[in-house]
Amino acid sequence: MGPGDPELVTVKALKVLKDADVILYDRLVSEEILSLCQGEKIYVGKSIGEAWKQEEINRKLVEEAKKGKRVVRAKGGDPTVFGRGEEECIFALREGISCEIIPGLTSAIAGPELAGIPVTSRIVAASGFTVISGTRAKGELDPDFIPEKGTLIVLMGIHDIEEVQRVILMKRRGDEKVAIIESASTPKQRVITGTLMKLSELVKEGHVSSPSIIVVGEVVSLSFNQ
Amino acid sequence: MGPGDPELVTVKALKVLKDADVILYDRLVSEEILSLCQGEKIYVGKSIGEAWKQEEINRKLVEEAKKGKRVVRAKGGDPTVFGRGEEECIFALREGISCEIIPGLTSAIAGPELAGIPVTSRIVAASGFTVISGTRAKGELDPDFIPEKGTLIVLMGIHDIEEVQRVILMKRRGDEKVAIIESASTPKQRVITGTLMKLSELVKEGHVSSPSIIVVGEVVSLSFNQ
Repeated sequence: MGPGDPELVTVKALKVLKDADVILYDRLVSEEILSLCQGEKIYVGKSIGEAWKQEEINRKLVEEAKKGKRVVRAKGGDPTVFGRGEEECIFALREGISCEIIPGLTSAIAGPELAGIPVTSRIVAASGFTVISGTRAKGELDPDFIPEKGTLIVLMGIHDIEEVQRVILMKRRGDEKVAIIESASTPKQRVITGTLMKLSELVKEGHVSSPSIIVVGEVVSLSFNQ
Repeated sequence: MGPGDPELVTVKALKVLKDADVILYDRLVSEEILSLCQGEKIYVGKSIGEAWKQEEINRKLVEEAKKGKRVVRAKGGDPTVFGRGEEECIFALREGISCEIIPGLTSAIAGPELAGIPVTSRIVAASGFTVISGTRAKGELDPDFIPEKGTLIVLMGIHDIEEVQRVILMKRRGDEKVAIIESASTPKQRVITGTLMKLSELVKEGHVSSPSIIVVGEVVSLSFNQ
């Protein structure tokens, strides 16, 4: 479903949503888009207390599909960028349900872009980018996922910002530029910039909340917003 | 304009294309979409011999805008993922032309996804991914852009595949899995899999041509295609 703006869904995503009998959706999915859909809407998101467990979502998807219904699982961002889309798809396929993943815009790229920050650029020799999650399923953040050069983008990094900063500093210089983009692609979007050494201070003093995207690298200086 | 499938453009991209007076487009832009647009279409792509230089494209964009026309620059993929969108936008802004970048699906993520390969997954502890270009504007490929862990995606890597393989092997084990996805998201899509050690052989023996996407990492084993 992309980064939030209802116009940033694909033509195909909008079509399948309108054709769906049942829609299981997350908190990052636009209400404006859901209001265009006739199907039954079931909230399975994770921010409002009683979140569904992944296994419950898997079972519900298959249960509805086995009734002969066309089921859409609507997720914010892209289903395969920390979205567990592949887990749900593999589960459904094993149960004999045919399914298809429709790519969406990930906020990891579209978030910085809409804030005027390109993830790659010849101008600053940013010839690659890396996306990591600041929240791990198991264990600690692993610096081996971070290269020494190129743009680094951290999703879900606000909650444990001191640990995120500590691990990034194992691979990057403290004077590298950072930008924190809060509520990217929504009317509430806010951008805070500084250096990596000050990252956790910027988050705390700015009272930054989730969802936010952290960008590390020289591309932060390129801001092309009008 | 996304990875190729005309249904994988965003609602917003389709809207601005239909409203455009002039469209400057690349070779990766779908003919099917262009046929829906009334505006003047100018091909500025780079694969058919006489390519426009970047400065010529910049000047043409501004020249048409200064005539009072609504100009759309349509690019394959996402404008800021090796797309130089920020260069064109910065040039236009300096000339006093207001402009807006509209994110698109990058083939770096959507390409593997449509071939059944997620760029991240808890199942194989792929908690991050990196995208690099196999073709550099200047100098050699730099291994410092490649982390030791996580999914690695290489765009534009076919032309110089031996060098690409050599540099990746400076950071990764030869027995890591690889997939090569040729013509992702089109009816001609083809996927070849093997190990990193055999990457250049796979490309040569398979007569792989551009555009192709190389994916390195355990996610290659997850294929969820039905």
